[in-house]
Amino acid sequence: MSQLFVVKIGGNVLDNPVSLMQFLRDFARIDAPKILVHGGGKIATKIGQGLGIESKYIDGRRITDQQTLELVTMVYGGLVNKQIVAQLQMLDCNAFGMTGADGNMIKAKKRAVKEIDFGFVGDINAESVNATFLNSLLMENTVPVFAPLTHAAGIMLNTNADTIASSLAVAMTKYFNVRLIFCFEKKGVLRNVDESDSVIRHLSNDMYQDLLEANAFADGILPKLENAYAAISAGVHEVLIGDAADILKNTGKETEGTLITS
Amino acid sequence: MSQLFVVKIGGNVLDNPVSLMQFLRDFARIDAPKILVHGGGKIATKIGQGLGIESKYIDGRRITDQQTLELVTMVYGGLVNKQIVAQLQMLDCNAFGMTGADGNMIKAKKRAVKEIDFGFVGDINAESVNATFLNSLLMENTVPVFAPLTHAAGIMLNTNADTIASSLAVAMTKYFNVRLIFCFEKKGVLRNVDESDSVIRHLSNDMYQDLLEANAFADGILPKLENAYAAISAGVHEVLIGDAADILKNTGKETEGTLITS
Repeated sequence: MSQLFVVKIGGNVLDNPVSLMQFLRDFARIDAPKILVHGGGKIATKIGQGLGIESKYIDGRRITDQQTLELVTMVYGGLVNKQIVAQLQMLDCNAFGMTGADGNMIKAKKRAVKEIDFGFVGDINAESVNATFLNSLLMENTVPVFAPLTHAAGIMLNTNADTIASSLAVAMTKYFNVRLIFCFEKKGVLRNVDESDSVIRHLSNDMYQDLLEANAFADGILPKLENAYAAISAGVHEVLIGDAADILKNTGKETEGTLITS
Repeated sequence: MSQLFVVKIGGNVLDNPVSLMQFLRDFARIDAPKILVHGGGKIATKIGQGLGIESKYIDGRRITDQQTLELVTMVYGGLVNKQIVAQLQMLDCNAFGMTGADGNMIKAKKRAVKEIDFGFVGDINAESVNATFLNSLLMENTVPVFAPLTHAAGIMLNTNADTIASSLAVAMTKYFNVRLIFCFEKKGVLRNVDESDSVIRHLSNDMYQDLLEANAFADGILPKLENAYAAISAGVHEVLIGDAADILKNTGKETEGTLITS
């Protein structure tokens, strides 16, 4: 099977126009089928403040009420997504911006209300993805660029960008040998969180279990690692956690970040 | 050649959720390849006011400055477009929302500065349209839903929705027998502007010329008629000007609005 890269970028890249442009230049040069998933960034909070929409939290968990849903639909699905697409087009990368609603690409379930009503949030997994249609877009040499939005029952839903990236990656293992790349603000998973050059270059499942037992990971990285191993166990060939600035190296053979395999 | 409907809806439908939902129900039922183009509506002005973005005019002509461009990219490309797509998906219509940047579907030229600098406005014609790719999406039974935005040189551009609809219609005559439908707030072109039931059901070129010479048209309808005849002379089979509420009739044989043929 040929290689597919599913790349997720978050706020640390999106909030800095210079970093974003440099990342997009590199991303455009990746010479293989590829999908980009972007998160939100501070711009939604900023525009929300202008509109008098407050970020709402219950027990520290973010809530998507009607106003917030409209805000993220505008900002993620419109402003951020289309600016990325226009820039990639200029770089001769045939980007196609979309949400999970477009072409029914990712059909979610609105999160059930249990202790907390998270509001307009969509839960998804690999089965939610319209892999056939996504594959046909890739076959036309387009580069899908996903905003972190899905849909159900006639409405848009806010959906975690990491989860979208994982779900797409798993769904596309049907057609490709997939490397899922999470870009974050560090070079990779660090052996020692205080030493930025202590990147674990290759994290095997055995080493992961050992380090877990030794409580060696910083709290922030644990959800990413759990996400990564879930993707691996669902058939994704490799997961890489690294810096957006290293995207070209991290799509090559000699990677800079942390490469996770089964 | 098989039939394609290119349908444009404007503010009068978009600003009223009940009219919009009824229109989308009818639009979803059109049993033929179809493309929807939507304009803006008052929501952009309202959100712009919230953000302190004033609509700017020079000599009565609207100017798209940087802030306004970001506003319309969010509101048209995000909020309005995705709400329409989500609703159509619920109606089992496989809508795919896009701007002219997505898949390089409509590549514009930024309007040259002459007496007036219109700002971030894109000028287009039928040659601007990526007809091959648009056709392949139609062949996959998707329903493209266009926001009134195009792109050039790495940036989004504001573009008139009527012009997008005409350009798409003309470009698709390569593959289809095209009926271009402009929905507006009246039943059709009126013989007497004060009589809402004086709809001219079929406007031939000869009748058009006669009525033009007699100064019989209201000012508001003239640009639409010029647009319509330009499309007809460029190969569009039929142009229909009518009420969004009549969309099902107006995609049939016995139309309610004004049917314009060569």
